[in-house]
Amino acid sequence: MPESRVVTFTTDFGLSDAFVGILHGVVLNIQADTKVVDICHSIMSYDILDGAWTIAQAYRFFPPRTVHVVIVDPGVGGARRPIVVETEDYIFVAPDNGVLSLIEARESKFVVRHVTAERYFLQPVSQTFHGRDIFAPVAGWLSKGVAPSEFGPEISDYVQAPLPQVERVGENSLRGVIVKVDKFGNLITNIAESDVFEMSAKGSPVSILISGQTLTRICRSYAEGGEDEVFAIVGSSGYLELAAKQASAAEKLAASVGSPVGVVAGQS
Amino acid sequence: MPESRVVTFTTDFGLSDAFVGILHGVVLNIQADTKVVDICHSIMSYDILDGAWTIAQAYRFFPPRTVHVVIVDPGVGGARRPIVVETEDYIFVAPDNGVLSLIEARESKFVVRHVTAERYFLQPVSQTFHGRDIFAPVAGWLSKGVAPSEFGPEISDYVQAPLPQVERVGENSLRGVIVKVDKFGNLITNIAESDVFEMSAKGSPVSILISGQTLTRICRSYAEGGEDEVFAIVGSSGYLELAAKQASAAEKLAASVGSPVGVVAGQS
Amino acid sequence: MPESRVVTFTTDFGLSDAFVGILHGVVLNIQADTKVVDICHSIMSYDILDGAWTIAQAYRFFPPRTVHVVIVDPGVGGARRPIVVETEDYIFVAPDNGVLSLIEARESKFVVRHVTAERYFLQPVSQTFHGRDIFAPVAGWLSKGVAPSEFGPEISDYVQAPLPQVERVGENSLRGVIVKVDKFGNLITNIAESDVFEMSAKGSPVSILISGQTLTRICRSYAEGGEDEVFAIVGSSGYLELAAKQASAAEKLAASVGSPVGVVAGQS
Repeated sequence: MPESRVVTFTTDFGLSDAFVGILHGVVLNIQADTKVVDICHSIMSYDILDGAWTIAQAYRFFPPRTVHVVIVDPGVGGARRPIVVETEDYIFVAPDNGVLSLIEARESKFVVRHVTAERYFLQPVSQTFHGRDIFAPVAGWLSKGVAPSEFGPEISDYVQAPLPQVERVGENSLRGVIVKVDKFGNLITNIAESDVFEMSAKGSPVSILISGQTLTRICRSYAEGGEDEVFAIVGSSGYLELAAKQASAAEKLAASVGSPVGVVAGQS
Repeated sequence: MPESRVVTFTTDFGLSDAFVGILHGVVLNIQADTKVVDICHSIMSYDILDGAWTIAQAYRFFPPRTVHVVIVDPGVGGARRPIVVETEDYIFVAPDNGVLSLIEARESKFVVRHVTAERYFLQPVSQTFHGRDIFAPVAGWLSKGVAPSEFGPEISDYVQAPLPQVERVGENSLRGVIVKVDKFGNLITNIAESDVFEMSAKGSPVSILISGQTLTRICRSYAEGGEDEVFAIVGSSGYLELAAKQASAAEKLAASVGSPVGVVAGQS
Repeated sequence: MPESRVVTFTTDFGLSDAFVGILHGVVLNIQADTKVVDICHSIMSYDILDGAWTIAQAYRFFPPRTVHVVIVDPGVGGARRPIVVETEDYIFVAPDNGVLSLIEARESKFVVRHVTAERYFLQPVSQTFHGRDIFAPVAGWLSKGVAPSEFGPEISDYVQAPLPQVERVGENSLRGVIVKVDKFGNLITNIAESDVFEMSAKGSPVSILISGQTLTRICRSYAEGGEDEVFAIVGSSGYLELAAKQASAAEKLAASVGSPVGVVAGQS
């Protein structure tokens, strides 16, 4: 089992407390050579879907064997299980609450284990901070080369999150939803580039319906957008976004996470 | 003197400026192999007590010989001294203003030195950014293996912060205070788990008084709490917290740092 | 070509998304040994001047051969070029929009290259996230030892930002501007210490005019300031600042970025 040189954290812990620093310390105390990287600590509190979209966007840009720890954990201290997951190139550590569901959707290999080997935990295990006492130490030992199979038995009844699906609505339209608003106010949907291609094959132009407005322009870059225009664009994760040039599309459209988005072919 | 592989920073510098990045650069410029870890940069501006609680919560989760730098420094450029402190397992660098008082309360060894060896400072030393010009370079040289004794003479008249103490009020009750509100709105008190045991030994049930309310339930986990309930719990640092399930106890109780908290035994 | 051990990032990406974590992953995936340091991700969105001031304040505190990546990129996906710049001690990677203009003002060597070697980019290159697909990978390959000349041809028609200049207004006064408000509410001007010396040589006392107020005291440290006083001070970057003791000068003066500041000699 080769060492993993990198451990990442994606959490809803924020940066106003010592929580994140403590996670780094716990990993380094087990394996001093590991590189600990913060992917994002601004997941909305307790929001499993936000955590799922965030790690899905980031994980594949890291070196093979990276250990990705994802902690959005409304059930901490309750009955939910800690899990370790192996995919072809990465290892994930998380609570068993569906926060890795989008990884499963993208990977052919997805082997889930229930972490039961308490010898790898910090003792005593608190009831409120499993990030410190369970998830970070497990990541530390994984990065030291301990095999996933050492942590517990394989399971198949792990939790899958009810991810919002793109719906076909009639023959020439589909309906998605805003899943994320980024720092610049871009509205990211769950509608993949391939979904948009599918619609445009049925008839052009393709219209985007959101917040009672109809957008007809799909730009190739933010720079291409006009002043005061809200336009559609395929973003860096391969999903349809609504954007505005040097301005917040979220504000202009008064839209947010959960807002419905329609794509209609052949109407003008 | 062995090298220290890790240097941590705990400051009130925030993340909206280049201050924190500069601290990292100064350390790496002295010792390129050091791992620099941010524990927290959201200490409330000038709030020595907030800094003291934060580093006390985090320091022991790092590898032995870690150099912990704590910069909450309302007196920068004035007469206050920079200090280096050795405990059994760690080294601390800070202004001499009491920000390490909670470390002293927890450690048997606590050797304080006045940092006077200006050859280790960045020159010229500014009057406004000793983090860059004094504290970070001292940490860099410590991590390179320079012994604490090289930085200046031992002192015994260092500043001790007036930490809020738990008071015994009558025979069956004690009074503490909220010392921290975390990102989730949990209210952390200065009342240790052992204080609660002491009360519950005098008579049960134990009641928690805060914001005009009386709480009688001490849960073992957040998940155990009811909907809309504010409950007590022993948090991950070993202190009594007031919490709510997936909600902010701070908002529900309209309580904040400094709010008094009572613990009463044998009443219902 | 020696390796560069450190890559830094200064961006307007914020910390609420996975953008910054992804930048770290991309660099580590190219060169696992590189240290990736965040200088600041709170540059005001699309604000090239804010980015220019921030990197200028920080870059020289890093080890020689550090690769500094600066991404404030309102023109992403448009015609603006990516550039690599060599100075005596450092390498910079940025969009060609003037964000490095203050570096040029301070360095004698400033060799600019247009990055055209697409073999170093992540493929396919998105139109919205060149940080991930161009700037971070170029930094990764530079840190691995690829020479700047490998990335493209030298150019001389790079963009220079219209940096606010200090103006001489009559014989005994000059006019500058607030370029930054830091986390503590200190107002940082573009008026250098030497400008203040120049004025004080013409007659004392020197008065500072801002927001309709006249300040006459230039303190040597924040601690020296009186309660409720707003005073001037030469800050850690060598520029005149307006400050208040443990309070926000920005609030007290109702001043912000862009507010004019006068320095007048020999009046009282």
